[in-house]
Amino acid sequence: MNKKVKIGYIGGGSMGWAWSVMKDLALEPALCGEVRLYDIDHESAKANVKIAAFLNNHEKTVVKWEYTNATTLGEALDGVDFVIISILPGTFDEMKSDVHAPEAYGIYQSVGDTTGPAGIVRSMRTVPMMAVIAEAIQRYCPEAWVINYTNPMAVCVGTLYKVFPKIKVFGCCHEAFHTLTLFQWMLEEETGGQIKKEDIRLNISGVNHFSWVDKASCGQTDLLPLFGKYADKYDAEGYSLWGGDRDPENYFRNLNMVCFDLYRRYGAIPAAGDRHIAEFLPWYLTNRESCEKWGFGLTPVSVRKKWQTELLAKRERILNGEESFEPNRSGEEGTKLIKALLGIEDMITNANIPNVGQAEGLPDGVIVETNAVFGRDSVRPVWAGRLPARAHLLVEKQARQQENLMRACMDKNIDLAFAVFLEDNLVRLDADKAWELFVRMLRNTQAYLTAWDIP
Amino acid sequence: MNKKVKIGYIGGGSMGWAWSVMKDLALEPALCGEVRLYDIDHESAKANVKIAAFLNNHEKTVVKWEYTNATTLGEALDGVDFVIISILPGTFDEMKSDVHAPEAYGIYQSVGDTTGPAGIVRSMRTVPMMAVIAEAIQRYCPEAWVINYTNPMAVCVGTLYKVFPKIKVFGCCHEAFHTLTLFQWMLEEETGGQIKKEDIRLNISGVNHFSWVDKASCGQTDLLPLFGKYADKYDAEGYSLWGGDRDPENYFRNLNMVCFDLYRRYGAIPAAGDRHIAEFLPWYLTNRESCEKWGFGLTPVSVRKKWQTELLAKRERILNGEESFEPNRSGEEGTKLIKALLGIEDMITNANIPNVGQAEGLPDGVIVETNAVFGRDSVRPVWAGRLPARAHLLVEKQARQQENLMRACMDKNIDLAFAVFLEDNLVRLDADKAWELFVRMLRNTQAYLTAWDIP
Amino acid sequence: MNKKVKIGYIGGGSMGWAWSVMKDLALEPALCGEVRLYDIDHESAKANVKIAAFLNNHEKTVVKWEYTNATTLGEALDGVDFVIISILPGTFDEMKSDVHAPEAYGIYQSVGDTTGPAGIVRSMRTVPMMAVIAEAIQRYCPEAWVINYTNPMAVCVGTLYKVFPKIKVFGCCHEAFHTLTLFQWMLEEETGGQIKKEDIRLNISGVNHFSWVDKASCGQTDLLPLFGKYADKYDAEGYSLWGGDRDPENYFRNLNMVCFDLYRRYGAIPAAGDRHIAEFLPWYLTNRESCEKWGFGLTPVSVRKKWQTELLAKRERILNGEESFEPNRSGEEGTKLIKALLGIEDMITNANIPNVGQAEGLPDGVIVETNAVFGRDSVRPVWAGRLPARAHLLVEKQARQQENLMRACMDKNIDLAFAVFLEDNLVRLDADKAWELFVRMLRNTQAYLTAWDIP
Amino acid sequence: MNKKVKIGYIGGGSMGWAWSVMKDLALEPALCGEVRLYDIDHESAKANVKIAAFLNNHEKTVVKWEYTNATTLGEALDGVDFVIISILPGTFDEMKSDVHAPEAYGIYQSVGDTTGPAGIVRSMRTVPMMAVIAEAIQRYCPEAWVINYTNPMAVCVGTLYKVFPKIKVFGCCHEAFHTLTLFQWMLEEETGGQIKKEDIRLNISGVNHFSWVDKASCGQTDLLPLFGKYADKYDAEGYSLWGGDRDPENYFRNLNMVCFDLYRRYGAIPAAGDRHIAEFLPWYLTNRESCEKWGFGLTPVSVRKKWQTELLAKRERILNGEESFEPNRSGEEGTKLIKALLGIEDMITNANIPNVGQAEGLPDGVIVETNAVFGRDSVRPVWAGRLPARAHLLVEKQARQQENLMRACMDKNIDLAFAVFLEDNLVRLDADKAWELFVRMLRNTQAYLTAWDIP
Repeated sequence: MNKKVKIGYIGGGSMGWAWSVMKDLALEPALCGEVRLYDIDHESAKANVKIAAFLNNHEKTVVKWEYTNATTLGEALDGVDFVIISILPGTFDEMKSDVHAPEAYGIYQSVGDTTGPAGIVRSMRTVPMMAVIAEAIQRYCPEAWVINYTNPMAVCVGTLYKVFPKIKVFGCCHEAFHTLTLFQWMLEEETGGQIKKEDIRLNISGVNHFSWVDKASCGQTDLLPLFGKYADKYDAEGYSLWGGDRDPENYFRNLNMVCFDLYRRYGAIPAAGDRHIAEFLPWYLTNRESCEKWGFGLTPVSVRKKWQTELLAKRERILNGEESFEPNRSGEEGTKLIKALLGIEDMITNANIPNVGQAEGLPDGVIVETNAVFGRDSVRPVWAGRLPARAHLLVEKQARQQENLMRACMDKNIDLAFAVFLEDNLVRLDADKAWELFVRMLRNTQAYLTAWDIP
Repeated sequence: MNKKVKIGYIGGGSMGWAWSVMKDLALEPALCGEVRLYDIDHESAKANVKIAAFLNNHEKTVVKWEYTNATTLGEALDGVDFVIISILPGTFDEMKSDVHAPEAYGIYQSVGDTTGPAGIVRSMRTVPMMAVIAEAIQRYCPEAWVINYTNPMAVCVGTLYKVFPKIKVFGCCHEAFHTLTLFQWMLEEETGGQIKKEDIRLNISGVNHFSWVDKASCGQTDLLPLFGKYADKYDAEGYSLWGGDRDPENYFRNLNMVCFDLYRRYGAIPAAGDRHIAEFLPWYLTNRESCEKWGFGLTPVSVRKKWQTELLAKRERILNGEESFEPNRSGEEGTKLIKALLGIEDMITNANIPNVGQAEGLPDGVIVETNAVFGRDSVRPVWAGRLPARAHLLVEKQARQQENLMRACMDKNIDLAFAVFLEDNLVRLDADKAWELFVRMLRNTQAYLTAWDIP
Repeated sequence: MNKKVKIGYIGGGSMGWAWSVMKDLALEPALCGEVRLYDIDHESAKANVKIAAFLNNHEKTVVKWEYTNATTLGEALDGVDFVIISILPGTFDEMKSDVHAPEAYGIYQSVGDTTGPAGIVRSMRTVPMMAVIAEAIQRYCPEAWVINYTNPMAVCVGTLYKVFPKIKVFGCCHEAFHTLTLFQWMLEEETGGQIKKEDIRLNISGVNHFSWVDKASCGQTDLLPLFGKYADKYDAEGYSLWGGDRDPENYFRNLNMVCFDLYRRYGAIPAAGDRHIAEFLPWYLTNRESCEKWGFGLTPVSVRKKWQTELLAKRERILNGEESFEPNRSGEEGTKLIKALLGIEDMITNANIPNVGQAEGLPDGVIVETNAVFGRDSVRPVWAGRLPARAHLLVEKQARQQENLMRACMDKNIDLAFAVFLEDNLVRLDADKAWELFVRMLRNTQAYLTAWDIP
Repeated sequence: MNKKVKIGYIGGGSMGWAWSVMKDLALEPALCGEVRLYDIDHESAKANVKIAAFLNNHEKTVVKWEYTNATTLGEALDGVDFVIISILPGTFDEMKSDVHAPEAYGIYQSVGDTTGPAGIVRSMRTVPMMAVIAEAIQRYCPEAWVINYTNPMAVCVGTLYKVFPKIKVFGCCHEAFHTLTLFQWMLEEETGGQIKKEDIRLNISGVNHFSWVDKASCGQTDLLPLFGKYADKYDAEGYSLWGGDRDPENYFRNLNMVCFDLYRRYGAIPAAGDRHIAEFLPWYLTNRESCEKWGFGLTPVSVRKKWQTELLAKRERILNGEESFEPNRSGEEGTKLIKALLGIEDMITNANIPNVGQAEGLPDGVIVETNAVFGRDSVRPVWAGRLPARAHLLVEKQARQQENLMRACMDKNIDLAFAVFLEDNLVRLDADKAWELFVRMLRNTQAYLTAWDIP
């Protein structure tokens, strides 16, 4: 008998995460119930309700969920069991400023949603949005479990906790799966057999998009020597079994050369793709050439805009019945986690939650990423220990930056926000130049910074 | 293909724990290898080697292990993969003084191996023994995993860490299984069906023999309301499905009335039998009548001596071929944990290790009991959160007592040891009377307190 | 030129503390200004305003302050520079229950304003009063410096901080001066000369009325050996140069025998009179005979009532002009501290403030008593280090009790309050008996426990 | 009657600090005794013994100390009451590499004894020296008070504590007096009167050469607004009453423009001269022009060498009787601190000791600079609170760098040392370039890096 649950989806008009969740839910026999889609773009939420009808009619669909369009946060959240948050803070126009305005100052970002000038300014507009959501959760569904997918992950989850300290929230990020895939490839190459990701154990610790693996095993086998072997062997050319990674035109390509280089330099394996990791360390990102040398793509915001246009067209076709909306498994863990929290099936996976000791040596309360045991009504972090000294040193700085940025954003303290900006690893500018860039970025995006006193 | 391992067993002459381990190993198909039995009573260790030969010849035996008798710690430990420690600190004559000398002062102990006057004096003679063992491990097998079964658990594990901080040790105690059994009984009574202990999830936190469960579930069901129902229902008469618990002559009887009473008073479920728990709270143990009233037995040391005599006779019969030595599963987790540490099969169970945050609000570094994830070459505590305020208050005192007792024992500081003694919950004496008892107990057992300057 | 300041006095109708402060201010040439007397007993406050007129007319008065009667907290506090809090929480009828109701259960208290059953119940009615005061300070004079004289000191100061975390408050207690006097006597006896208290340096640490001195010097001389000498010499008969201490009828007598005994047992000098210290350690207070044996008085509340009657008569005589109200120095430090906070003259003395590390090993945030540097607009605790292990063990328990009691009182959690009560050192009762006493005490004083849900 | 003390002086051949100390001691009437001069350059120590004879014969000398030349550390330290450490780690040739080798990579250092590439490499050769000294102190005079003047201050003091945790050591640095002078100038300019430095109160917090003042007063006057006024007024031209600071050829010039700029940017006053402060913040030190713009000198090591030559000639003249060696007060606090530690006269001044809470928010155990109360046999830090958020952010990074550098130096972990190097604020190089520079610097100075495995 499947368990009936109510889910409030904030950012429910999205054509990325929302569609994935909808499809996963359609295929999960243990669950059923209702999903309330809320989006500040009401039309998109409405469109997704219509798409849900197509989904429910699809022959492969196992469970038909009831989808509604919520026009207020209260409507979306009142009495729900689960909340999913996947929003875009601002539009791609803001993101364009975040990512590309710094280029005039010699600063490049390969993603721009977490750290660097882009991540900081994005945080400044995201925190007030998350504060509103946290208050609504406290009011309408204080006992609900909340899954956040929005970036900057640590800052979003941190805000939710700061505003409503008893919130049951965790941040969910698939970047760490990247390392699982890498080990799967290596093991299959070595053994000639098939390896299941579920059989690989990683000990992970750090902050989102900059977490590290310091222990890895598959059954009785220690995987670190294997990683070292590949890091040495594919030093110059990189390593990936996905064809797209060899395409120099691919804005998302990722040959793991940064990852290999860092393993040799810092003694632990970064648990995210090179595009994310590189943003924390300036020497991989000095210019377009350096990115090419290290085999990873700089993702321009224009490509995101193009996708969006394509997705809008696709949505149109689906709504017109010109294209089917077929359920398939996304590979994301959302529905599994919901099942675990209901007590249906425990699991251990990585989660972004406040540090209560699991990330030894990082400050208490910062949002860290380690493994956690997901069980009935509980997410319990598993002690990850202390990272090797050199990796720890790098992560600790980012944890402190996060802490200071959070404080700046909660207090709307523009001077403190700039002090964080000036200390960012990518900002190797003089104080005056940095200020000029900072102000320029704020002014570009001020429509979404109304809570701040912009200079 | 089974994994070959070397095990050093300290206290290898025992007829209790050692026999259980030997039998479990004989039935575990995933493992094989050698076991070196070491005991300061060399003859007993030799006897167990002979018994192992009988075991290896038994038809039910699945794996034949190689058993040897080690005459020194070095011999026992050199290069082993695992160390098991289950010793009796002193003889039952010392334990007799521990448990019964305080009776003249109106202090009764139901077990006497952990806390109270008995536990403190036992600690004073155990710490120097554990220090010797820790040094030997550091020298002969620093990478080995060490399983401690010896009581006082927290003090033993604490000493091992203090003397050799990089030791890979955890303390293993089955008292928490008691709560699993209780829930199993209740659930089976409620549902009429069969319930597997493995399906019950407990969140446990505290110090050994005084840890508490604040969350419990079985699948999607919250078990706390069920517990409350039974606590109310069996308030007056107690609850146990084991017949012996109704026998007033049974020195080990346990009707869970203390457990039920504490749940109502303190809002969490003590995770050990009443005989253990009562020793931390003086009002259950004011005299023999109070124990009768609360339905638990006071275990005299004479009964332990009688057992020992019976076991010696049994050993004689086995060695003479008059009785067989048949393998059977003990229900203990030792072999499962060894498998988990080898990477063969992960598991989550309770472990006694230093607090690194898993027991929120307890001091860092004290030995706490919470769940931990056992995996390849790792024991990682799972965050248990903070106990409900009232239970926390009780546990915190014990954690502090442990810390001070450890410090006293490491420094051989008799005055500090007495200060701890005077603060013990069972010692409601005036300072002078308490000193008189303390000195008497030390003098009774001074043959095993040579490292101390006895007054 | 004297500095003009505004002082709001809460409890301004008192005939003890208020009169002392009024006299001290009249003699302090560096200060002048206004004092607003507020008291829930408005008539008493009015009477003190009239008395102030007599004081201002006295020939010895150096500075004439302007005194007014404030009828609301807001009136008393609006825009003041300093706040003084010295209130009686409830009446002596409540205190009578606090101190004497436990006697039926064999529990005696020599003072009854800090710890033990009396202190706990007093805390329960004081915390809500302090919460109101803290809110008023936050509203009317958030930048003012606040001096608290009210007991239970730690709980009062703790509440003020918890309710208004940015409050500038410290608790001021003269009990530690007791130890200064003791050293003065000893030094004068030894040297035959005159010794000034200001030349004696004490390092003090602990919680109010249970703080300890672990270092003491006068110039180049270490005073601990001297103390040891007197502790040994006056072991049996006690030591005091004040005649009243030899009078067995004196309810306040204090022969320092408890202090000497504790120095020998715990290796540090308790920094308060025996009547206060004894309340933390049950064996000095087992019955009336034990108090006699240890040479300290049990102070009945009847004697406090008698005093009050005498003081009321005295006040009448002053108001009628039958008795003069002459300024003289109280020996209290209030006016000196005000001067220090204004930047007029720095000083170092003991203060009760939250632990930020000054009392090593005690929990962060509990109210501890150590030295502090008082300077312009600042009170900065001086690191006192960690007490000797045995004394630390005693103090730590009290710090934890304070923490739990504070939490219980803030949350009006009666069960937690009782859990603290049951752990109190003086409460060596069984749980049921203790509950009976607890409920009786609450019911006796329920007129002042309206915020609580009394069982 | 003056107090007789024994002083062991490590680095006793110096012509800077040693001469100052000798002169101060000669003028201090409260003290007398012996000074043992130890130096790895034995001849210099011998020369200073001879110079002491001239000093003792000088008519202005008040107290004649007995000076001896110690040929071993044991001889210098055996049974002394005080130890003074002022050594040069290596020679000026090593310092030349430290300071000038990085210039080829665009990195300039104005001093080069604390942070930046120069400070890191200097630390790497200093730590092993300090470790030897710490061991000697533990062996020969474990109860002595130790005053360290050697730079890098934090790393030196940190090593002494790590090697001998019970050492009684503090680091003494006069840079903070700089801020006192600045306030003295301002106050005298404002009031037209004379101001004594002793009347100015600073609250200081941070790490040596990068500590900050967040509160300052003189009597009842808050000095921060005054500082703000001068920072604004002398923004462009700087401010100094010392003529040399206007001389562009002066390698030590210091117009406080960095200090003023940082006050405006970060909300607190750096408590050291601009040459020291600038080394922590890359934008003041981008090149020679930036230093000129900010009005501070780059001190080449050649000038230090030249001085040394001049001092050697001067020493020759003194020893030949061609020049007198006259006692005068240095302005340093060494002798005052010795008096305070003897109990002669308490004082409060800044000290470098491990953080036990005095520098809120900085990690426990790192060497921080705050005020401390110096009294008989005690140095007790005064709680400085938490710096304003922006200044705190800067200091925290340096505290973390210190911690990691200490760990690297204690473990001789070259990779960790490089990780610290790469994170240094002045090192805005790519990883490979940074490694090249690092290795070059190590090789240049490898004669003093024998404990390390140089790549």
